[in-house]
Order: sequence, then structure tokens, then C-alpha cells
Amino acid sequence: MAAVAVANGNTSAGKSTPVAGRFSNVYSELQRSRIDHSLPLPSVLTGNFTVVNGPNSSAAGNPDEIAKLFPSLFGQPSSVMVPSDTEGLASDQKLKIGVVLSGGQAPGGHNVICGIFDYLQARAKGSVMYGFRGGPAGIMQGKYVELTWDFVHPYRNQFKQAEETALKLDLDGLVVIGGDDSNTNACLLAENFRSKNLKTRVIGCPKTIDGDLKSKEVPISFGFDTACKIYAEMIGNVMIDARSTGKYYHCKYKDNKIISLFDVSVLPFVRLMGRAASHITLECALQTHPNISLIGEEVYAKKQTLKNVTDYMVDIICKRAERGYNYGVILIPEGLIDFIPEVQKLIGELNEILAHEAVDEAGLWKKKLTSQSLELFEFLPQAIQEQLMLERDPHGNVQVAKIETEKMLIQMVETELEKRREQGVYKGDFKGQSHFFGYEGRCGLPTNFDSSYCYALGYAAGALLHAGRTGLISSVGNLDAPVEDWTVGGTALTSLMDVERRHGKFKPVIKKAMVELEGAPFKKFVSMRDDWAINNRYISPGPIQFVGPTSNAVCHTLLLELGAQV
Amino acid sequence: MAAVAVANGNTSAGKSTPVAGRFSNVYSELQRSRIDHSLPLPSVLTGNFTVVNGPNSSAAGNPDEIAKLFPSLFGQPSSVMVPSDTEGLASDQKLKIGVVLSGGQAPGGHNVICGIFDYLQARAKGSVMYGFRGGPAGIMQGKYVELTWDFVHPYRNQFKQAEETALKLDLDGLVVIGGDDSNTNACLLAENFRSKNLKTRVIGCPKTIDGDLKSKEVPISFGFDTACKIYAEMIGNVMIDARSTGKYYHCKYKDNKIISLFDVSVLPFVRLMGRAASHITLECALQTHPNISLIGEEVYAKKQTLKNVTDYMVDIICKRAERGYNYGVILIPEGLIDFIPEVQKLIGELNEILAHEAVDEAGLWKKKLTSQSLELFEFLPQAIQEQLMLERDPHGNVQVAKIETEKMLIQMVETELEKRREQGVYKGDFKGQSHFFGYEGRCGLPTNFDSSYCYALGYAAGALLHAGRTGLISSVGNLDAPVEDWTVGGTALTSLMDVERRHGKFKPVIKKAMVELEGAPFKKFVSMRDDWAINNRYISPGPIQFVGPTSNAVCHTLLLELGAQV
Repeated sequence: MAAVAVANGNTSAGKSTPVAGRFSNVYSELQRSRIDHSLPLPSVLTGNFTVVNGPNSSAAGNPDEIAKLFPSLFGQPSSVMVPSDTEGLASDQKLKIGVVLSGGQAPGGHNVICGIFDYLQARAKGSVMYGFRGGPAGIMQGKYVELTWDFVHPYRNQFKQAEETALKLDLDGLVVIGGDDSNTNACLLAENFRSKNLKTRVIGCPKTIDGDLKSKEVPISFGFDTACKIYAEMIGNVMIDARSTGKYYHCKYKDNKIISLFDVSVLPFVRLMGRAASHITLECALQTHPNISLIGEEVYAKKQTLKNVTDYMVDIICKRAERGYNYGVILIPEGLIDFIPEVQKLIGELNEILAHEAVDEAGLWKKKLTSQSLELFEFLPQAIQEQLMLERDPHGNVQVAKIETEKMLIQMVETELEKRREQGVYKGDFKGQSHFFGYEGRCGLPTNFDSSYCYALGYAAGALLHAGRTGLISSVGNLDAPVEDWTVGGTALTSLMDVERRHGKFKPVIKKAMVELEGAPFKKFVSMRDDWAINNRYISPGPIQFVGPTSNAVCHTLLLELGAQV
Repeated sequence: MAAVAVANGNTSAGKSTPVAGRFSNVYSELQRSRIDHSLPLPSVLTGNFTVVNGPNSSAAGNPDEIAKLFPSLFGQPSSVMVPSDTEGLASDQKLKIGVVLSGGQAPGGHNVICGIFDYLQARAKGSVMYGFRGGPAGIMQGKYVELTWDFVHPYRNQFKQAEETALKLDLDGLVVIGGDDSNTNACLLAENFRSKNLKTRVIGCPKTIDGDLKSKEVPISFGFDTACKIYAEMIGNVMIDARSTGKYYHCKYKDNKIISLFDVSVLPFVRLMGRAASHITLECALQTHPNISLIGEEVYAKKQTLKNVTDYMVDIICKRAERGYNYGVILIPEGLIDFIPEVQKLIGELNEILAHEAVDEAGLWKKKLTSQSLELFEFLPQAIQEQLMLERDPHGNVQVAKIETEKMLIQMVETELEKRREQGVYKGDFKGQSHFFGYEGRCGLPTNFDSSYCYALGYAAGALLHAGRTGLISSVGNLDAPVEDWTVGGTALTSLMDVERRHGKFKPVIKKAMVELEGAPFKKFVSMRDDWAINNRYISPGPIQFVGPTSNAVCHTLLLELGAQV
């Protein structure tokens, strides 16, 4: 039996190739102690069990199209592990299993691999396990493949090579650990293998710190719990810091003399990861109770403008200033401006104009903008205007992703407060403090929850492959109960899918799970945010603990979705 | 007995006034569990003890001038607590003690207050304790005092008010918890009170996360341990992230087709707090083993130029790229450029020119620069040039502090690598990733070490006041031993002092402790950094733990200075 080190690649941006292994020969004391940390398993996986089928499945949307795209897989039932008197799977069966980490990093991925490994060792002795290095490209024989930047036909070209690898290694199974794109790919691979009667089965595992891969059967993606707890620690620290900094004073000078003094509000603007969905911001808000949290999905649903968003923040800052609170903490999802319809419209118009027009100093090009877009453009801080015009991608498109959202909002809030000061409504001054909590949350030591959850996902994936299942995503449920009582199974990947029309063709997608405005976590947030805005309800969760009172806490989003009181 | 909530003010920038209390009625579960965490005390403080004097003291430099500035205090002996058969201090003495947190935040400050409180409760029953809110301004009767921004005569004007407060409250003692400036002020206050025969004694406690307040008798300032461990956790996460991100590829496009591909090195540049000294960067380097760490004191001692520093980084990046390591982690103290002599020279010249000259578009003003400064100015990235010229403080001075050092270095490394690529020496491409770990380190839950250390400092301060001592800084030693064996005493503040000549007058200062290039921590770093640069020795310390294997670890700097093997 051989286990191979596996490093993350990044397939979602189409950039991926082998890199040095993630395992190092140097560990910190805490890392070493975590290696020895024993992992509990759901009870159903510790005794004899069989894998039974549920009812036939459908799709998340457009079942007819999904059925056409996955003729071999569509409609297959989900699987559930249930206790049995005798061992349901042949223990003398030797399996050859490959595993690959796909997409961005998330804490816990290696525990999935340990779970698969331990399953094979315990229940299918003599099995072999391969790890593909460098993400999905590793499946293409570990060589660098030149990927094009657009995803017109990314799959068919690669299947051939993946097939060759699967045949060469004589693989019984392949586990793909990744996000929505990676699990879509896993399903396409499963379909392809089955349609050609290859013996290689494919099982997915839900990984993304963004928390946007989930469904009824997959209550959460792993990594979300750890990342949010790391961010919440930092937010809690910044809260205490802002609150205890004391007032700053801003002086206006004339002839080197102080002519006036303003109170200065210290306002940390914290940008958090999450471009497509705002789960991280919502979870961190529920954990720490900031004064302002912007949720992209709400901004979109209410068709808010940048001006609306700015006014919302400024109103709260002014109210707080009236009460003598010269500080305030603001959370922002990094993808916020993608949720603002008028910004999308402006970007579209800019791309069109910039492709065909010279940009003249005098600004005549602006006449091509619709009046709404022109108004918005003029409303943007100058630095952002310049960034939009100057920094463009190789295709000449405006790069919205490069805008540091929190800095843009700081400038907009500053401008609006200046106006209100001139009107006499606001008497203070304002000092925005910019924070971005990003990559430091993706590679932390996994929490106890993520450790156990990943291990169970991996162990289950081993069992699903052992039972000959394919095209399923490993599913562990009942997560607010003790680990022993967690349920274990596999969900048909096609049942999570819908289609999108691209370049005139239907493309299967696992829809990203957005923050549900009717869901319990958002409703809980809405019920409390006005209180948090004006009063001071900060909570500082402190660093992740591995032993002791808080070590087994589960994130609020999950608990609320499962119906627990938080 | 009354304990009053105390909030931090910020006196070092002369901006301070009452703020809302730091204590909140909302705690996280971990915070609550920390409140119940029992604090050990050095054995000498748990039984009967007396306070005995050591030999007479001198000053850190210019003892004659210090003696003139502190006629009542100069030369007084340090104090040591030693076990005795009977209680050395009268337990029926009732004390009135004030306490103030002064300067920037540091984790653990409230444990000092708890230590004082518990001391009084245990050993001087019936005592009263006051907390001054909002920093030193709180001593001035809790009102806002208009402070000027320069420190010509900051002390005499305030003594009168502080005196009135001390008299009004009938204070026996005052504890000032702060950094070098705050402890200098504490000593001036002690001198003033003694010279007027007031009964109020003043004791200081060493607080600063920067770690630059220390001496033989004060081995470390509190907060440093916690802050460095928070930063080291984040650095460790960023290391694993950079290493596991996989290669990025950078394409050059022509007519929308890829014409060439470069490997892209992912290089996080991490700026850390520490403007005057580089202790935090050194400690974090010792904890995490990054590829490059810049230590300001070394840059200064070797009279390095910005070009030297850039070349040092670029050489390592190129060597790593040759070996296929397309990532690297770089630590930078925020005060780096203050240590570069040529930059100081340029800044001086710019301030002079900008004060008397109009800056013309054509750049004629540059002729006023010396040739060396002109060369440096032209070497700076354009964005930095503009920042220097445009963003000036109210006195018209260039604001070096506003330069985001890590972003400047990213630009300089980029430019140099571009040159080397043109020369064919470097074949890759480069993606600097900017991080600033700052305020989130100042207000974390204190480590077990900082918790115990602060408590002992406070308890000792209580005993020193009880014993009638003044002008001392609470001193706890033997810190690499178990808490029971820590030594306890007080060190004459004047013995830590030297003078600086400002505006023609001698001003007493506690010199900031710099990274000693002959000291054990720096030597240890030097002996390992070449290995860390090229090979991959990253260590990820993980989050601060309060129970378990790593929970009582002490920071490397302190251990190395105390002679321990790390």
C-alpha cells in the first residue's frame, strides 16, 4: 500500500501543475500534537454496515437536459450506510484508489485522504492508493498541460488522458476533493468512465472555505468552519482594539496652529473572502456581532445602488457618533460590488467602449455611457475611476476583482461624511482602517469539527468505492449531534446539478449555494443587526482551541440551518 | 474596595481622553473560560515575604544629568522580595491606589490590574483602588486636556493636575502601565511627588507588544509574547498557503493569443508591527523560518541602501526559482525604511526643499537634492515618489510612516526582477502578495505566559506600594523557570534612563531596546537564515492554545536571551 503526498492545485482558474509536496519534515509542536489527535468516526462506520440505495434521484433544475448530459448516471439513487449483522462488503477485495485535491486550499483536505487510507487499511486490506500531485493536472500523467483560459471544451480533451491514467494504474476508484467546479468535473469523469465501461468509479468530497457548495444532503463544505473561526478571532481582536484605542483627534492647522479639533471615529473596514456568495461574512457576523455587515445577496435582491449602501453605513456611523461611540466595525464580502446591478451595467458599458474607443483626456468618451452609468461613474472615488480605466486584463476588460472593496467603501463613506459635516449633521471626523483577512484563513490547522468531518467524508468515500458506487458525493449528516450519531452516505452528483447555457450549449453546473434570504442564519442576523449597529455587542471568540470548552463548537450557520438554537 | 474599569488611551501620540470601558457584558465562551483560568504566582509572593533593598543604582547613560533631573529619586536601590518567617508588611494598612493604562494596547494589561487588586485584597484589606479611564488624561480629573503635538514641556503643565487628583483621592500609590514614554512619565511623576513630600508613590509596569522596553532586570514587556504568537500563526498559515497554491502562470497575449508563459512566483510580503525596533520580526522569524526576514538594526549597522536590500531579496528569489521553488515568504518590520541612512538623508532634504520651494512639473526642484539623494529618489517606484511629494503632515513634512513598506518593496523587487529577466538571468515572473499583520495582534486574549506574567507584575506592584517604594518599575525575572520560581522585585526607573538633548535641554528617556546584533536571538537567526532562504524550513505554529502541549511555551527571543537552547 502506498500513500502519496498530495498538494493543492488550482483548477478553477485553469492554472495548475505539479508542485512540491505539501508535507514538510519540519513541524511545530502543535502540528505534531495534532498529528497524534485521535479522530472519532460515526458509529455506523465503526461496526458492520451495508450500503443501501435510496429512491431514484432527479436534478436541481432542468432534469431533461441533465439526463441528456449524463445518460449513464442520471437518476441513480443516493447511498446510505446502515448497520448490519455481518460485514456488507468483501474484505478480501483489493482496491486501487486515486485521490486528488482540486481547487483552492481548505483546511482539512488531508484528513479526507487519511479517512480513505484508513478505510482501505481496515476494510480492504492490500489496497493501493495514489495521490495525484498538483491538482487535476496530476491526473493527466503528472505533466503540465497547457490550459486555455476559457472553458469552452475543457472536459473532453482531458478525459482521454484521465482515462489513460486510470487504465495504466488500473484504478478501481478516484476521489476528487473540491468545490462546485471540481465536483462537476468528477461527475463528468464518472459519466465518461461508466459510458465506456471502465471499472474506475469516481466519488466527490465537498471542499471550499467559501461555504457555497451545499445542499440538503451536503450540509456544509469542509474548511468553512476553520476559516470562519480564524477570521472571527481576528475580527474580535480588531473590535477590542478599535473600542479601546480611545478617541483620536484630528486637527485642522493654519499657520502651524491648531484652529479646530474633531473627534475621529476609528472604523475598521474588514474585507473577507467570498466572491460569489457572502456565507463567510454572515457566519463571522453571527460569531462576532459587528456594527455593520454587508451581505451581497441582500444588496442584489433589493437592487441596491452603491449610494444606498454608502448611505446605510454613513447613517449608522452618524448615529453612533451622536451617542459618543467613535468607533465601529464593518464587515464586507470581497465580492460585494459584483452584487450591485448598476455596477455590472457600468462595467459592461466600459468594456464595450474601451474595446472600440480611444479614451480622451477631455472625457468625451463618457458621452457613450448611459446616463445612469455616467452618474455612477462620477460618483466613484477618483482612484477607483482611474483603476477601472487603467488596469485591464489581457483581453482589455476592466478588472473589477482588483478593486480593494473595503478601500473603495472607505473613500465613499469619507466623501459622504464630509458632505454631512458641511450640512452640520455630522460633527466628527473619520479614520477608516483597512483590513483584508484572506489567505491566512485557508491554510490554518483544521478545527476539531473539520478534522472529524473530513475524516468521516474520506472514510465514507472509501466505503462507497468499495461498494462499487460512482458519481456520488460523500455525504455526512446530522452534524449537530455527537460524531458517533452522524449519518453517512453518498448523494448522486447529478441530483445537485442544473444547466447553464454557454456559447449556445448547455453546460452542467452545480449551482453555488447563495445566502438564502429566507434561511434561518440570515433571518437571525436580520433580527439582531439593528441592535448590533447602535449598541455594542461585540464578541471576541479568541483563537481556535483543540482541547477545552470551545474546542468542539460548530459554526453558527450550520447550527441554524439544522434548526438548532444559537 | 472599588475596582474601576480601565480603558487604554494613547499617550505616545499625545491623543487621549476617556472612552467607553473595555469590559463588555457580552463574552464569548472562550473569554468566559479564560476569566475562570486560575493564575499561578511566584512562590515568594504566596508566603510571607519582605521587601529588601539592593545596592544603590546609577543610570543607563549620563548619570550626572539624570541625577540633576531626578534629585529626589536618583541613585535609589532596586527592591527584591525575599521569603521571611513573618509578614514583612503591615496587613492592617489601608492603601488608596490608582492605576492607569498608558500608550498602545497590549494583551494582558487587565491581568496587571487584577494582580494589584488581588494583592490589596489579600494583604492590605480595606484598601481602595481607582482606575483612571482613557489613559493618562484620566489622571487629569477625567477631563479632556488639550495636548499639543510636540513634547516640549508636556510634564510640568500636567503635574499640577495630577497632584490635585492624587491629593483629592488621597492616593497612597499610582501604578502606570505603559511603554518607555509612559514609564519615563511615571518616573517624572514620582520625582515630582517626592520632591513635594506627597505621600503618593508611583510604580511602573512594562507594557508594549513591540518588545522594545527591556533591560537586564526587566527581561520582557508584556504583550510581546501574545502578539508574536498571533502573527506567527498567521505567517505559518500564509506559508502553507503560498507553498500549496501551485504555480501560477502568467501569459503574454498578442491578438488575444497566448504568445508566452512564465512561471509566476507567489511571494507573500508580510509587514509586521515595530517601527522603532525589529523585535517582532525577529521573534516571528525564529518561530516560523521564513525565506527572508529584514532586521532594521542590521540594515542600519551595515549602512545598507535600498538597492542593497532589494538585491538581497532578488538574489534569493532567483536562486529559489532556479530550484523550482516558485514561492517564498518575506517578513518586514514596518519601520524598515527608518533604518536606511540614505532614506533619512533624502527625507531631510525633501522637507527642507518643500518648505521653501515650489515643486515644478518640470522637476527643476530636484536640482536642489544632493546627487546621492537624487539617485535614490529616481530609484524609488513612481507611486512612492508621488506619495512622498503629495501626502504631507500639517507641518508640511514628508510622511514616511504612511508608506506601506511591503508594497514599496514589492514594486522594487518587481522592477529588479524585470531587469534580470531582460538579462536572461531570471526566467520566471513574480506576484507579490501584500499582508499587514497589525492591530489584530494587539488585542488578542493573552497567552498563559502573558496572563501569569502580568498578574505577577501587578501583584508585585501592589507589594512595592505597600512597602512604600516609589520610582520603581515592577520586575519579574527567571522567566524560563516555572512560575513558582520567578523572582520578584522593583528596579529604579532612573537606572534605565539616559538623556537626549532636545531644544537645547536635556530630556530624560528610557532608551528603546533595539535588536542586539551581538545578542543570542539575532545570532541564532543569522546562523540559520541562509538555510531557511533556499531550503524550505517553514514552521506553522498554529493558533494560541490555553491548555495542552504548547500552552505554556515562552517566546524564543526571551528564551535565547536567558541562555536557554531553542
